[in-house]
Amino acid sequence: MIKPSLPRGTRDYPPTVMVKRNIIIKTIKDTFEKFGFLPLETPAMENLSVLTGKYGDEGDKLLFKVLNSGNYLEKVDEEERSSFDSNALSVRISEKGLKYDLTVPFARYVVMNRNEITLPFKRYQVQPVWRADRPQKGRYREFYQCDADVVGTKSLICEAEIALMVHEVFTRLGLNDYVLKFNSRKILEGIIEVSGESDKSEVFFTILDKLDKIGFDSVINELKGKEFSKSFIEKVSFIIGTSGTNKVKLDLIKPLLMSSKIGLEGVEEIESVISYINSLVGEMSEIEFDLTLARGLSYYTGIIFEARALNVKIGSIGGGGRYDNLTGVFGWPDLSGVGFSFGIDRIYDVMEELELFDSQKIGSTQVLITNFDSNAEKFALRILTKLRESDIKAEIFPDNVKLKKQLNYANKKNIPYVLMIGSEELKKGIFTLKDMVTGTQEEISIDEVIQKITDSS
Amino acid sequence: MIKPSLPRGTRDYPPTVMVKRNIIIKTIKDTFEKFGFLPLETPAMENLSVLTGKYGDEGDKLLFKVLNSGNYLEKVDEEERSSFDSNALSVRISEKGLKYDLTVPFARYVVMNRNEITLPFKRYQVQPVWRADRPQKGRYREFYQCDADVVGTKSLICEAEIALMVHEVFTRLGLNDYVLKFNSRKILEGIIEVSGESDKSEVFFTILDKLDKIGFDSVINELKGKEFSKSFIEKVSFIIGTSGTNKVKLDLIKPLLMSSKIGLEGVEEIESVISYINSLVGEMSEIEFDLTLARGLSYYTGIIFEARALNVKIGSIGGGGRYDNLTGVFGWPDLSGVGFSFGIDRIYDVMEELELFDSQKIGSTQVLITNFDSNAEKFALRILTKLRESDIKAEIFPDNVKLKKQLNYANKKNIPYVLMIGSEELKKGIFTLKDMVTGTQEEISIDEVIQKITDSS
Repeated sequence: MIKPSLPRGTRDYPPTVMVKRNIIIKTIKDTFEKFGFLPLETPAMENLSVLTGKYGDEGDKLLFKVLNSGNYLEKVDEEERSSFDSNALSVRISEKGLKYDLTVPFARYVVMNRNEITLPFKRYQVQPVWRADRPQKGRYREFYQCDADVVGTKSLICEAEIALMVHEVFTRLGLNDYVLKFNSRKILEGIIEVSGESDKSEVFFTILDKLDKIGFDSVINELKGKEFSKSFIEKVSFIIGTSGTNKVKLDLIKPLLMSSKIGLEGVEEIESVISYINSLVGEMSEIEFDLTLARGLSYYTGIIFEARALNVKIGSIGGGGRYDNLTGVFGWPDLSGVGFSFGIDRIYDVMEELELFDSQKIGSTQVLITNFDSNAEKFALRILTKLRESDIKAEIFPDNVKLKKQLNYANKKNIPYVLMIGSEELKKGIFTLKDMVTGTQEEISIDEVIQKITDSS
Repeated sequence: MIKPSLPRGTRDYPPTVMVKRNIIIKTIKDTFEKFGFLPLETPAMENLSVLTGKYGDEGDKLLFKVLNSGNYLEKVDEEERSSFDSNALSVRISEKGLKYDLTVPFARYVVMNRNEITLPFKRYQVQPVWRADRPQKGRYREFYQCDADVVGTKSLICEAEIALMVHEVFTRLGLNDYVLKFNSRKILEGIIEVSGESDKSEVFFTILDKLDKIGFDSVINELKGKEFSKSFIEKVSFIIGTSGTNKVKLDLIKPLLMSSKIGLEGVEEIESVISYINSLVGEMSEIEFDLTLARGLSYYTGIIFEARALNVKIGSIGGGGRYDNLTGVFGWPDLSGVGFSFGIDRIYDVMEELELFDSQKIGSTQVLITNFDSNAEKFALRILTKLRESDIKAEIFPDNVKLKKQLNYANKKNIPYVLMIGSEELKKGIFTLKDMVTGTQEEISIDEVIQKITDSS
């Protein structure tokens, strides 16, 4: 007998969790489609030649590698066997890995299908990814990503639409207290440029990105440690201290960037996006121009986003930005695009904490029909079909067991109504409907049952 | 530069395919939920201790194994390194594999969560599985399975409900010409028993399962080759030759099984299921009692199913059956259950061949707004929001480019309507709506646009 277990860092999603997750995923997918994004799926496994070198050395180490099939040692001779370390051997016995994110496979797809796709290409993708990270609370080795990207246009309408999509998703989910921070990598580049630190932009982005975690003083100390100039650090202190409306902040930053072409371009782009949002839906109070937002990923080149839930300590619940060269490594340079990714695990946690899941709507089955005896059962089956014909999710308890057990089943499964059909009910043609939330019972005709359940859903 | 490629036997699902696949998957999921099944998801990776030994020697060879993380060679000493063959090494450097089907992980889940779940437990699961099979036309190394199972009850109502679910799924998809064949492993066991061949049931099932592929004569020859008795082969010939209504076939088989308790039990169960279906929905013309149906899998013990599309040569498009000991290997014996699995790839192929996808409903975006100049653009953005507020899937072409290019985009993306907003339209407040299917254009107000698109969807 094998004691069943799960690999470290992985988890099952039981029905109680799935029904809630599905609400989030459906909301996001519906919104993506409303905005013209179409679904794409790529395989779990990619060739390691596609994956390696895209996520830095650290990322390469976190790739799950799949053993070649069959007699994979065939090509490894005896000397190599004893001399190879794990890394050297991996290259010879493993050609495939599990995908690490959805972005690189998307870029691979776009390049492989460049003759079939029409630009601009808008796709969304909701699939699991795998990382051999050290498992810890809230960090899993398999988790879902939820991305929408449009490539093949530089239009800033796309950035504005992303802000709207974020708004629509959170509004539909009832998650109204959120902020969508945005900034431009170009503005950050500009600050670096006017300070004569142009070779250190990557280092700067990485340090600034930690502001939330380590705080103002530590950021300044780290910058000093990396030998940024005094004048640069002064500018960064000024930026971090800046507050006020989006307009106020833009007006404050402009003079600082007068001598930087790229910096001013960044400011103009931010202004354009705000203007597009205004044309689309008017003022959007949830967007916040935040000069301290950097986003860790190295491939962003333009406007960047990060969504955060207010009143909940959980960090980012989504993020994205514009990139100018996602597909270059696969042979298609200068293809600009912009994308956004929702963090569904964190959104789930926020919604649980704020109790935003409507318990009436997350149970699947709407009514359970009890099973008393074989005589009533026959009649109950006909009623079951009648309920389903009215598009009611219904089931019958399959065995003649004690009522208590059947009611317990309904309770555990979060079924709101139980319809009792015994020989008495059979004779009269009137049923007893039990409301599992209030505990009340009423005698009721089948048409009234249908009306009642339909109305309550 | 890396030439991007896909691992052998895997594929991308591009948007054109995804939108159609999603119709199938949504129909199946909705139907499962209507019948009280709830979603479950398990990780892609399982411990190899859970997977190996469950699919026979052949199956074990087809498991994709995942390399342990880090310095996995650490525990393999020099002598072992040079003496080990691939199999011996795998055990030491790989602890996890990709799941081979959804059934074993489901059994693993049930046993691991035996204290949390309430019986009967009804779950459905739609996820990819992986098999290192030799890739060929229509056979992939990653493919989706689509299963519903109920465990913890022996009630034959469950079998009847499976027949109804199959019917509802195919009817909703417009796939009306199908047959749901069913049989009972107990009847086949009975035939073996009355022929004194009780030790050879597995061999018999495997050979009978090939009837469709190899034909009557070859089945008889194979049985002779395995030294089945003359009287047994005569009975099998009789069974294969049997035709007529379900009742006729049942009446023919009964006398043959008079001395077999298990055989008669099988007949009674078939009769019960038919009777339950009658109580639920009346006669169901698509069900066909087929004495030659065996199903390959060894774990079935009761009624078995197989769905086939008529008028299309494609084999089974779904199948399932009852098993009595799915979880025994994990330490929970005698848990009975019954399940069904839809073959979505084949259903897709059938629907393509019979042209059952409604082209009006598979495109995502319903209307594209053109982009002429920055003045009209502003106005167009407001209109875009107005359309979306009426729950119309709409997008604007993000760049001011030639109309031809914009119309081409709509065509390629299968968008049925294009709304043209230029300076002229801006002045008059009247728009030009182009029907991309008929090619006709009309001048129309925004409210009429909304009405028209809403009506056509």
